[in-house]
Amino acid sequence: MNNFDFYNPTRIAFGEGKIAALDTLVPADAKVLILFGGESARRTGTLGEVEAALGNRQVQLFGGIEPNPSFETLMEAVTIVQRDGIDYLLAVGGGSVIDGTKFVAAASVFDGDAWDILLKGGTNIHRALPFGSVLTLPATGSEMNKGAVVTRKSLQAKLPFHSEHVFPQFSVLDPTKSFTLPPRQVANGVVDAFVHIVEQYLTYPASAPVQDRFAEGLLQTLIDIGPQALSDPENYSVRADLMWVATLALNGLIGAGVPQDWATHMLGHELTALHGLDHAQTLAIVLPAMLTERKDAKHGKLVQYAQRVWSIHEGSESEQAEAAIEKTRAFFESLGVKTRLGDYQLAEEHIEPLIKSLEEHGMTALGEHNDVTPDVCRRVLHASL
Amino acid sequence: MNNFDFYNPTRIAFGEGKIAALDTLVPADAKVLILFGGESARRTGTLGEVEAALGNRQVQLFGGIEPNPSFETLMEAVTIVQRDGIDYLLAVGGGSVIDGTKFVAAASVFDGDAWDILLKGGTNIHRALPFGSVLTLPATGSEMNKGAVVTRKSLQAKLPFHSEHVFPQFSVLDPTKSFTLPPRQVANGVVDAFVHIVEQYLTYPASAPVQDRFAEGLLQTLIDIGPQALSDPENYSVRADLMWVATLALNGLIGAGVPQDWATHMLGHELTALHGLDHAQTLAIVLPAMLTERKDAKHGKLVQYAQRVWSIHEGSESEQAEAAIEKTRAFFESLGVKTRLGDYQLAEEHIEPLIKSLEEHGMTALGEHNDVTPDVCRRVLHASL
Repeated sequence: MNNFDFYNPTRIAFGEGKIAALDTLVPADAKVLILFGGESARRTGTLGEVEAALGNRQVQLFGGIEPNPSFETLMEAVTIVQRDGIDYLLAVGGGSVIDGTKFVAAASVFDGDAWDILLKGGTNIHRALPFGSVLTLPATGSEMNKGAVVTRKSLQAKLPFHSEHVFPQFSVLDPTKSFTLPPRQVANGVVDAFVHIVEQYLTYPASAPVQDRFAEGLLQTLIDIGPQALSDPENYSVRADLMWVATLALNGLIGAGVPQDWATHMLGHELTALHGLDHAQTLAIVLPAMLTERKDAKHGKLVQYAQRVWSIHEGSESEQAEAAIEKTRAFFESLGVKTRLGDYQLAEEHIEPLIKSLEEHGMTALGEHNDVTPDVCRRVLHASL
Repeated sequence: MNNFDFYNPTRIAFGEGKIAALDTLVPADAKVLILFGGESARRTGTLGEVEAALGNRQVQLFGGIEPNPSFETLMEAVTIVQRDGIDYLLAVGGGSVIDGTKFVAAASVFDGDAWDILLKGGTNIHRALPFGSVLTLPATGSEMNKGAVVTRKSLQAKLPFHSEHVFPQFSVLDPTKSFTLPPRQVANGVVDAFVHIVEQYLTYPASAPVQDRFAEGLLQTLIDIGPQALSDPENYSVRADLMWVATLALNGLIGAGVPQDWATHMLGHELTALHGLDHAQTLAIVLPAMLTERKDAKHGKLVQYAQRVWSIHEGSESEQAEAAIEKTRAFFESLGVKTRLGDYQLAEEHIEPLIKSLEEHGMTALGEHNDVTPDVCRRVLHASL
């Protein structure tokens, strides 16, 4: 096991009816800005339920945070926060809204050009407004971590930042709030959580049996419940498991003390920035090809993944590894998330601009061995056609 | 899954050499009281390393906190804290020292008779001094939770308390600090962690596959590494895994959203209070007999435990459950922790006073169904002879 630091102070209020806890979770004298995405938050009644729970507090609303939240939109929220003396933020939505709220929390009290937060990856954040979240879409894990990704549309740049100052103070996880999600978002959520786990697990053996078993347990659970989450959308138990898995997939726990990869994510971000694909779609395209490209470097863990997660015991180790990669691709496809560039009308001519963009963002030595160069990424994209 | 609240703000600094991080973890202007147990902390050099890391801070020492820390001893520390204006505590030791430090942290700023903290289970704690810990003995999980157990020798009472105010601000987990532990303490630690997990896992099926798989992963890891932890005391990897398992066994995570038992612990506490047995010895005695006594109520999870943790697939479900209980007993014995009252010179005549003590402490409806009455406990003790 590698040395590590683990810290996660986000309070989780989990279960049906937990939105009522906002009355104690949010300071009584807070001047609150509720941030949300599209009109579904209002239409489903969640926004009304949140406002009711906040009682007599001063509350303003800021809607319209888009998937892959944009710097441009978020800076409008920053202006309102500064103008109106908002002192508490409440994200109501999925990972994009929570990521965006993290940025608003930091940018509202940032000295200088807020874009610098992204250029420095958040290392220049020294304080942020306090905030909480009400999660409606299990997927990104943003509800219990210190990371976020923001896109600057004008620059076609999608960049991550991290800071302990942007942990949510609390997150309310009520699985019933996910009942009305469109199937595409549910499927995306399963894929997103799955790949988050894989990026922290499928590297090389690091004498960390607990982290391995936790990651395997989360993956097995996703494989078990993923199809049901789509076919039986109001099954509370399934949606509860999905919500908790997605949170635990990226709250720092399974990645503590082990090598991490994240090459699939970084390459995927370029696909979203240049072509607007859903985040999970980009992961479903890149991951199977990336695992095949790096089969030798990942041999030990790929075999373990095959045996423990997919119960593959037939054939040689190499065949087991290949079979596990195919099972992974088939799992994504079974959820309706396509795994080929061609499925999204992307072809060979789109590859070079993606590689160029990756290079411009300094992503030239990715992966757990820092050997995923632009050349490797080019081969991965070709294999994804 | 049941509704739950999860909150754990303790910062973990894990790995060899991490004691040096005390210089940033403890406030620079803190007036520190270091609390520790016996002279081994000094003899092994850990205390010196801690003092060196604290640099120029004002530091005082308080040694002599015993296993099953006593109210009487801890109140001496409270007197020193109050007299000398100590504003930061640092526990250096195992669960007893950390539990004791939690009590000192709360009692030092408590209005009224500090024994009331135990009588009210900590619900009357409204503030506490900040503190951290340097863990030397993987076992209790106290380094990353809000619970503690204190014994009042004069009353032969061993009582728990819980409060969010007594989370350690940080805990340093350096596995090398466990290399010099006596084998008995290592074996006790494995048993203690094992039973912590079982108390949160072996109840009844609650549609919580993630919690189940995490618990099973921790148990499997303990079964794998327990013997090695004894036979190869300076194996860093094994001791690192043991330390992280013991912490995760009782930091609130695997118990979130599931029913919990704790009857074995409550009955075990009486054995320690009246006869001075090591905490883990009491668990090793009580657990196998308790599982046998409650085999029907725990049938579903016992079979799952048999199949997933012990890989028992032969025979009827009932036979699998019985085999798993026997494997559990054999595991404890293989570590040198005896599982019969007779092994500790206790006999039938000692049972009634234990039951009387249990009743006096209000422990009359224990277990996940609140149906573990004193009568049930009496049968368990008879079966443990």
